[in-house]
Amino acid sequence: MKERAFQDFYPDDYAVCYGCGRLNPVGLHIRSFWEGDESVCRFEPRPEHMAVAGYVYGGVIASAIDCHGVGTAAAAAARKAEGDSAPRLRFVTASLHVDYRRPTPLGVPLELRGHVVEQKQRKVVVAVRLTANGQLCVEGWVVAVPIPDSMLAK
Amino acid sequence: MKERAFQDFYPDDYAVCYGCGRLNPVGLHIRSFWEGDESVCRFEPRPEHMAVAGYVYGGVIASAIDCHGVGTAAAAAARKAEGDSAPRLRFVTASLHVDYRRPTPLGVPLELRGHVVEQKQRKVVVAVRLTANGQLCVEGWVVAVPIPDSMLAK
Repeated sequence: MKERAFQDFYPDDYAVCYGCGRLNPVGLHIRSFWEGDESVCRFEPRPEHMAVAGYVYGGVIASAIDCHGVGTAAAAAARKAEGDSAPRLRFVTASLHVDYRRPTPLGVPLELRGHVVEQKQRKVVVAVRLTANGQLCVEGWVVAVPIPDSMLAK
Repeated sequence: MKERAFQDFYPDDYAVCYGCGRLNPVGLHIRSFWEGDESVCRFEPRPEHMAVAGYVYGGVIASAIDCHGVGTAAAAAARKAEGDSAPRLRFVTASLHVDYRRPTPLGVPLELRGHVVEQKQRKVVVAVRLTANGQLCVEGWVVAVPIPDSMLAK
């Protein structure tokens, strides 16, 4: 059986995100998994996701860090509360920070690795490193918080 | 004659960006203009750019801040060097920071206003505020640098 990503556990109402929603037909479909204490996402941007020829657009990189970060936060919350990794509560992004260390090549798979660096019930901070061809290209972090009441499905 | 956006001055090789490239057929087409000392971008995300129903995806917001910020940096550099606003040098993003203050509604035009808060020859910092229906939803900033040699068109 194919391993389920963190995002595969999001209820349908919360699975429409352009970045990671399995039900968003044109989105990026970011998918995240545990590998020990690290979360890993492998993602290959589409040809149109360019900044200039040959390099990935920074907004798509920010998007991948965003969804991988909040997915990791939700999975970490589930692991702490329930001992498994099936997120029951959707997290959203309070803050996002991205440092572009070198241009990210387009046309190869990118690997994002997340670490939970702070975990409280209502705030999880996830640091993310993005590599391409084994070389560090981008570092960033996400401050994730439980989805506010105003964003809950009616 | 229709006013030209900062991004309309980018040479063709640098006008393919998924966020702001006029030559990227499926991109976001972020366009920025001066209004006095502020730069302004008006942008309406597409229906698929949702986080959850009714709200804009944070990665698309980060993308808009990114391209509006680097466009503002390029225009500010041109204004300082040449006294006009036709960017001759493409800037790229070294760092991007976004604080999501409240959920951003989907289906209405968003307004992004940029301020140059630091300007050196090789580093321009632009602060951006995003409002929807007149209400502040997001604040962020971009550290922009001249495009590195490695990203120049061959």
